[in-house]
Amino acid sequence: MADTVFSAAFVSAAIPISAVIGILFAIFLWRRVAQIKVRGNAGVRSENGREYLLEEEQRGESEIEEKAADLQAAISEGANSFLYTEYKYVSGFMGAFSVLIFVLLSSQDGFSTEWKEDDKGVLRAPAIYNGAFSTLTFIVGAVTSILSGYLGMAIATYANARTALEARKGIAPAFMAAFRSGAVMGFLLAGNALLVLFVLLLVLKKVFGDDWEGLYEAITGYGLGGSSIALFGRVGGGIYTKAADVGADLVGKVEKDIPEDDPRNPAVIADNVGDNVGDIAGMGADLFGSFAESTCAALVVSSVSSLGASHSWVGMCYPLLITGSGIVVCVLTTLIATDLKPARVVSEIESTLKMQLIVSTLVMTPVVYVISVCALPAEFTGIFSEEPDRVVKNWHMFFCVAAGLWGGLIIGLVTEYYTSNRFTPVQDVADACRTGAATDIIFGLALGYKSAIIPCIIIAVAIFTGFSLAHMYGIACAALGMLATIATCLAIDAYGPISDNAGGIAEMAGMGEDIRERTDALDAAGNTTAAIGKGFAIGSAALVSLALFGAYVTRAGISMLDSSILDPEVFSGLLVGAMLPYWFSAMTMKSVGKAALAMVEEVRNQFNTIPGLMEGTARPDYRRCVEISTAASISEMIPPGFLVMGTPLIVGTLFGVRTLAGVLAGALVSGVQMAVSMSNTGGAWDNAKKYIEAGASDHARELGGKGSDCHKAAVIGDTVGDPLKDTSGPSLNILIKLMAVESLVLAPFFLAHTKNGLIFQFFGHK
Amino acid sequence: MADTVFSAAFVSAAIPISAVIGILFAIFLWRRVAQIKVRGNAGVRSENGREYLLEEEQRGESEIEEKAADLQAAISEGANSFLYTEYKYVSGFMGAFSVLIFVLLSSQDGFSTEWKEDDKGVLRAPAIYNGAFSTLTFIVGAVTSILSGYLGMAIATYANARTALEARKGIAPAFMAAFRSGAVMGFLLAGNALLVLFVLLLVLKKVFGDDWEGLYEAITGYGLGGSSIALFGRVGGGIYTKAADVGADLVGKVEKDIPEDDPRNPAVIADNVGDNVGDIAGMGADLFGSFAESTCAALVVSSVSSLGASHSWVGMCYPLLITGSGIVVCVLTTLIATDLKPARVVSEIESTLKMQLIVSTLVMTPVVYVISVCALPAEFTGIFSEEPDRVVKNWHMFFCVAAGLWGGLIIGLVTEYYTSNRFTPVQDVADACRTGAATDIIFGLALGYKSAIIPCIIIAVAIFTGFSLAHMYGIACAALGMLATIATCLAIDAYGPISDNAGGIAEMAGMGEDIRERTDALDAAGNTTAAIGKGFAIGSAALVSLALFGAYVTRAGISMLDSSILDPEVFSGLLVGAMLPYWFSAMTMKSVGKAALAMVEEVRNQFNTIPGLMEGTARPDYRRCVEISTAASISEMIPPGFLVMGTPLIVGTLFGVRTLAGVLAGALVSGVQMAVSMSNTGGAWDNAKKYIEAGASDHARELGGKGSDCHKAAVIGDTVGDPLKDTSGPSLNILIKLMAVESLVLAPFFLAHTKNGLIFQFFGHK
Repeated sequence: MADTVFSAAFVSAAIPISAVIGILFAIFLWRRVAQIKVRGNAGVRSENGREYLLEEEQRGESEIEEKAADLQAAISEGANSFLYTEYKYVSGFMGAFSVLIFVLLSSQDGFSTEWKEDDKGVLRAPAIYNGAFSTLTFIVGAVTSILSGYLGMAIATYANARTALEARKGIAPAFMAAFRSGAVMGFLLAGNALLVLFVLLLVLKKVFGDDWEGLYEAITGYGLGGSSIALFGRVGGGIYTKAADVGADLVGKVEKDIPEDDPRNPAVIADNVGDNVGDIAGMGADLFGSFAESTCAALVVSSVSSLGASHSWVGMCYPLLITGSGIVVCVLTTLIATDLKPARVVSEIESTLKMQLIVSTLVMTPVVYVISVCALPAEFTGIFSEEPDRVVKNWHMFFCVAAGLWGGLIIGLVTEYYTSNRFTPVQDVADACRTGAATDIIFGLALGYKSAIIPCIIIAVAIFTGFSLAHMYGIACAALGMLATIATCLAIDAYGPISDNAGGIAEMAGMGEDIRERTDALDAAGNTTAAIGKGFAIGSAALVSLALFGAYVTRAGISMLDSSILDPEVFSGLLVGAMLPYWFSAMTMKSVGKAALAMVEEVRNQFNTIPGLMEGTARPDYRRCVEISTAASISEMIPPGFLVMGTPLIVGTLFGVRTLAGVLAGALVSGVQMAVSMSNTGGAWDNAKKYIEAGASDHARELGGKGSDCHKAAVIGDTVGDPLKDTSGPSLNILIKLMAVESLVLAPFFLAHTKNGLIFQFFGHK
Repeated sequence: MADTVFSAAFVSAAIPISAVIGILFAIFLWRRVAQIKVRGNAGVRSENGREYLLEEEQRGESEIEEKAADLQAAISEGANSFLYTEYKYVSGFMGAFSVLIFVLLSSQDGFSTEWKEDDKGVLRAPAIYNGAFSTLTFIVGAVTSILSGYLGMAIATYANARTALEARKGIAPAFMAAFRSGAVMGFLLAGNALLVLFVLLLVLKKVFGDDWEGLYEAITGYGLGGSSIALFGRVGGGIYTKAADVGADLVGKVEKDIPEDDPRNPAVIADNVGDNVGDIAGMGADLFGSFAESTCAALVVSSVSSLGASHSWVGMCYPLLITGSGIVVCVLTTLIATDLKPARVVSEIESTLKMQLIVSTLVMTPVVYVISVCALPAEFTGIFSEEPDRVVKNWHMFFCVAAGLWGGLIIGLVTEYYTSNRFTPVQDVADACRTGAATDIIFGLALGYKSAIIPCIIIAVAIFTGFSLAHMYGIACAALGMLATIATCLAIDAYGPISDNAGGIAEMAGMGEDIRERTDALDAAGNTTAAIGKGFAIGSAALVSLALFGAYVTRAGISMLDSSILDPEVFSGLLVGAMLPYWFSAMTMKSVGKAALAMVEEVRNQFNTIPGLMEGTARPDYRRCVEISTAASISEMIPPGFLVMGTPLIVGTLFGVRTLAGVLAGALVSGVQMAVSMSNTGGAWDNAKKYIEAGASDHARELGGKGSDCHKAAVIGDTVGDPLKDTSGPSLNILIKLMAVESLVLAPFFLAHTKNGLIFQFFGHK
């Protein structure tokens, strides 16, 4: 095996430096956003935004700023309090799960602390090390994920009022404020995730010595921790945001005929809080999880290859180098949007955001090639478990990563096509509103189903490329390739909810029709970019979970023969696994429905019992609605949480490792389709509604605009789409990833104790 | 190998006799239905029901009868003309496909006509025999399927007016008329299907001599033919019926606020025609296809076992004996509902229908045991291709069949629970209408997702049982077990649309409120039984297509090792396969939407341009609406037809047999969930609407009844559900079955020419 071009010292320096560049760039952007001054002693005067309704007429600009600051404080307070409550419950769960992991993994050789030499003469750490350090990395992953979500939320609630205030100056400064803030989140998260992982690697390297298989096995806890938090973030945040949104819309828009984000609506603060905890904190945790898991999957798969066996530190660091260089490339690309060629008019917003993705993908391609050739030995072996001598060349890895990188871009563009109202699919859905809500919904569902076709084929091609060239390592690297532009993706994704919030603040602070139109334009682009972000999230989740699945299969000692779809356990597992996304979605959809109903009751109740509320002379009780959303999301996230976390444990224990393999594969192939169609259907309905509202073309104006029957039908579609696109759809990413990573972490336990499943063992099957 | 208890002569007599018993019983029931006299020279006076609107007040009973007869004639004429048009186009396609099959299959050994001895000394027929007789059986299967659909439609349109007229006497006689007519269809279809297949077997036995493998391979064309027709029947009929239904509802109920089936609605005849061509002819063709395919799968799998090798005619006839005995058992059970314990009041209807299923399952169980022990040798081998010596005992087969039989019953009961408005799930959906259409739809979608859980687990258990005990033969026999009560299933299924039509005729003939309430009650039970029927259809389709898949894998020479989910081709195929149901549903949903929009335009246009139509003084142009539905369904069924028929051919040719295996498995596991949830969501919405309309409980009355806001929301849900439950959902059954059987039939061609796929061969992959 040849040496690598890069030296170990270079690699050990380059990775943390690129992470630090990302973090510094985030701070730099944050300081520029901070230059926008929001006057008023934010957070002090506000008591859930109780005083924004009086004397609308005689307010000057400074009063508007005051109100914006107060609203920002109220939203930030609500978001903080939700995250605090959520993390309180989650940390209890994480504590219990840590103990479980420790006990299950350490129990393999009866808690022995003895190091043993394996048949290759390598001193292997005892199982208790795996237990202890998997638990440690699990906790570190969870904490990093919490931090990522929290920081994202913090910058988003810091930026929303600023974006609204900038909108008074025009589209360009408002766009800049929202986009920069989104980028702060993107770079902070990517930088942190990489840095923490690298430090963990260095620590574990000291502990595990020459036992690299043990080292990289223990690191998988990092992915599990990240994704566990993401589960609760996505599900809890998703239920929170949609309960508030649906509840606010059903009473406000449908019954009372008041506009979105009207300060008279009691659920309006909860709705704006929801954008931050669901779309920002949840999304951040989700993509952090994908990053952590794909890296861990790549590491654990390659640790058993000749890279690991020959202790090639540079080769093992290949996945981290890809991510690190991605951060640096994204820094350069971001400067295009912020300094070189910023959007100046409405029509440029979507194309500027899209350009970000295209340019970062283009620039990244040669970078990946260089890294592949320089960080990897010319060829290596041991990747194909059934053919240990099959050679993988370093440029093979370039194609694997590039398949993911370009696949992500194409998925993003296809998603844009199906969810942006500049294209015919959404316009057709809007047109179907002529005949009422039913046809709107039928066309929207059909659009979602159809939008799954190309992403699915793209993922299949990436899988085939990765699989053929470098088995599961190729797939993990394809996932990393798709996530290489994670900072840009997150930036354009976080931009959406920030604009949405800015619109809400503009409306509530009474900034006037023209300002609101600007924020609406920002928001419409945000809906599409949010859908693109969700496309990336699900695409990478599919690759990641397949990579984890591959690592699990390797670790659980399942041969090609044992994983045939002609094996009864595997096929039954496949069928049941394909059902799990449906079960999970039933839970999350119903939860949103139930929570929304509770919210509707409360909002109706306030309109009925608070005299003068409808006239704008009395204030609603915002706090009560925030509490309802919080309580509902916390209690409703438990059953889906148990389903996802419990399934691998129960199936692995009772039905054995092969059934579990089937379940994972089934959930993966069925979940991908569902997640893509749900996200796109919801995005399309939302933008069909915005298309009718904006009336920017002859066709759109023909549909009648706000308040027409078409618009009412479109609002119903939008409301149905809310839980689909922001709760159930994105949560499915976590379902498929988390079950896979949990199976991987627990594989040694299953292998030692329940390989064929306790139930089958009882019946004497095989 | 021990001998069988049954003699060959006994078996050869028992099978046709049981088929003839079924046919005779159908004729007997038909004669009883025929005793109900419909006066008026039906069919002569009618010109698309043009004269039903005048002088409503002074009509006597005889006039009502006259009108009912005319309406029946108009509906029958519309249905006939649609089926004629549909079959005209389909027969062109079938002709072309016959040629394709013949050429592809015969080309294997260059059209040689020479018989060759194989290594076991058996004289094997040349490939051209396989080509010629597969084509023959394909055509026979198609013709039988057309005949089944046509006969079902004929009896249903014969019975609809009779049921409406009987409703004047009370619930009991009306129920009896509808149920008996449904049973006529069930027994005719089951008897015919079995008889034709048996005759084909006898003919092929003469032709193929000792080459039993060739014999049973050629017979699979029968399944392919049956399912091809079913595809067009389900898709074309489904689009027809829902375009008319949705179009009629959108203008009639939503815009004009006139009741369902109001004769002023121009689309009302098309709507009633649709029930017959979609739910009756389509369903009949679908279940006929399942029966034909599961039998063919069982035969082809067992032909390579020791049963085939030792030329055990009795053993080979085991699947046919199960079906034959099922017919006889169903005759006995039907007598319970028609003579021993018929339903006398509304509340008994659903339980009487359910009792049919339960009793036939109970009685069938010991019968299956006796047949398993008597028709099969005590043990046989050669079923497990990887372990040819593994012994299967005859009582193993009892468990396989029983797993399907009981699984079908449980799926039926679960479906009832989720779709009947006597239970909480549908009541919750109705309750969600309080907050409007959006929550109705969110709750309905969640219900559908949830309703997939138990059926899916039941199917997985049946698969596991069948698989473990007797590999793919076990699965095929489980499918046969589920279809053993096919006559009863079809009877209770066809009962639904007949009642629906009867309601329409009662309304249109002006029979009065009380009569209409009775037919509504019959129809509500019919909605649930239709959902049960769809549950059976999809459950059996899943088992059938897995069995066919197994046969395909065996035939295409794919080993366990080659079909691992860790194989790149297989996994990529799995993912793309799981996407196909989405693609297909997108097409069918959108087709319904488009056709419905065209219908809406026409109906609106007639209301606007025909003076006096709304007042009931002028007549609508029913014929125009019938033409629109016919034209739309014919042109819209082509793209989904190509998708289903083209996929196996293209994938098998370009990407090889392993990718195709993945595609089939993926489509299967994903399609099952989608089909179940779509059917149940639609059924639940429909019955939630009926629940609000009927107002039979305090809770239901609280929701406001007909015309309330709740009811309007429920109507929107019902309209969305229409294409889900009657077009897209049930068509998915055909998708998964048809792709599997087509792959099986074409397997010899793929194996000979494109085993690894032309594209992969081009790139030199493996």
